[in-house]
Amino acid sequence: MSEQVRVAYQGERGAFSEVAARRLLGNDVTAVPCHSFETMFASVVERESHCCVAPIENSLAGSIHRNYDLLVQSGLTIAGETNLRVVHNLIAPRGVGFAQIRRVYSHPVALAQCTRFLAAHPELEPVPVHDTAGAVRLVVEQGRSDAAAIASDSAAEIYGAEVLERAIEDNAQNFTRFLLLLPDGARTPELREAARRWKTSLVFRTVNKPGALFRALGAFAIFDIDLAKIESRPVEGRPWEYAFYLDIVGRREDPVVARALANLGELAETVRILGSYPTRW
Amino acid sequence: MSEQVRVAYQGERGAFSEVAARRLLGNDVTAVPCHSFETMFASVVERESHCCVAPIENSLAGSIHRNYDLLVQSGLTIAGETNLRVVHNLIAPRGVGFAQIRRVYSHPVALAQCTRFLAAHPELEPVPVHDTAGAVRLVVEQGRSDAAAIASDSAAEIYGAEVLERAIEDNAQNFTRFLLLLPDGARTPELREAARRWKTSLVFRTVNKPGALFRALGAFAIFDIDLAKIESRPVEGRPWEYAFYLDIVGRREDPVVARALANLGELAETVRILGSYPTRW
Repeated sequence: MSEQVRVAYQGERGAFSEVAARRLLGNDVTAVPCHSFETMFASVVERESHCCVAPIENSLAGSIHRNYDLLVQSGLTIAGETNLRVVHNLIAPRGVGFAQIRRVYSHPVALAQCTRFLAAHPELEPVPVHDTAGAVRLVVEQGRSDAAAIASDSAAEIYGAEVLERAIEDNAQNFTRFLLLLPDGARTPELREAARRWKTSLVFRTVNKPGALFRALGAFAIFDIDLAKIESRPVEGRPWEYAFYLDIVGRREDPVVARALANLGELAETVRILGSYPTRW
Repeated sequence: MSEQVRVAYQGERGAFSEVAARRLLGNDVTAVPCHSFETMFASVVERESHCCVAPIENSLAGSIHRNYDLLVQSGLTIAGETNLRVVHNLIAPRGVGFAQIRRVYSHPVALAQCTRFLAAHPELEPVPVHDTAGAVRLVVEQGRSDAAAIASDSAAEIYGAEVLERAIEDNAQNFTRFLLLLPDGARTPELREAARRWKTSLVFRTVNKPGALFRALGAFAIFDIDLAKIESRPVEGRPWEYAFYLDIVGRREDPVVARALANLGELAETVRILGSYPTRW
């Protein structure tokens, strides 16, 4: 693409979503911060941005269903994915030392993921705010000498603040998976990371009968197609009926994948392909 | 039980978890507020409480993996479940009218679930705090005449505050599923709601081969056992391997369920039963 790629993300400058966007597409993109997931999807649907980068699951917190719902409603398609290790750092305005700090600002989820660090430092009062990167902006803009934030490296850099303690999260197995989404038929921007393989994501609904899921998975099992993820979700307004979100390993155009998807079309009530995309994982 | 049942829950008095606990066990229990999910589980493991009530999934936000992990680590067993509709209300100290309010305190997730209401009232500034019920306590204790909270009915009642607007959440399909957990072998306290059927929850791991999940589900499909939920989760430290959390309809002691579980034992690498419990759903 000769024109600079505009990629929407949720959060302020320096948010983990922006880090993921740059990791997928490089630094030579225009990252468009959005207040909410809804406005982020709208920005792409209304063609104000070429694409967006949406967190879809976290290894500790689980699937972000709101974004699955928005993906389905918006009709956008998945064009790539990346897995970002979430590293939380204690960040203070330049010149502020650890001993001066009394309050620590961050998103409640980030505070909750640094429980051990905060318990070891009872002199630090945790203060919840809307956004991790926004917490850094806040302590820097207010020139606070008694306050720090918990956020990404990148937020420290953007707001000219200093990392006092690195990787203070309780659990190093803290990964968030982000999807690159764009309008169906739009050209995929160049991805930075070389693909090792392809994945195809889909959602399908079966009749509400015992064994229905078993038969549906048979469509893939008979061709030895590997499943990367499965998750059931209740269908809104239809109690005891479920939709299944499935990630399979393989490209939509691969002959056996195409055949398996055709078989699933016969077995399931509805099938919708959410995207077929290269991945490093 | 002649002795009064002590049930631990996460949050302050009036939290949705306390509402769920009373719905499961009645009002004649001692509800023990806990600061975190970790201290809640510890309270039961160390026998300071008889049982606890843990949120395990929300219809919008998805599974609460932290509590699945704590359930597995703690060795507690599931003895019941309830599904609570999450209704958010605008709550102010008594005597405060809607027109006076400028700031609205609540947990960020609750604020995010009332986006439409807040967008329709731009004069109200949302302020994130740790807990929904704690937000009500805060505005009442500070005697604020310009502030309100977003929380449950029950929180309004406990802190003597007034509901100004009822059900201001964007999406009425907002349900949280809570599990009643207790030490294995402990007697189940009497449940208020009559059981319509039984569910059995388990977690199993298969070898990392295409078709492994298909064969494992075959253990249930051949007996027409209905699946209520399935979810895959990566196994920590073993990339590309998954554990499957499964809820099936039926009681562990039912002959076909017992046989299916025995079959699964042959097919899977590990199987662990998390509980078999009566449910109204």
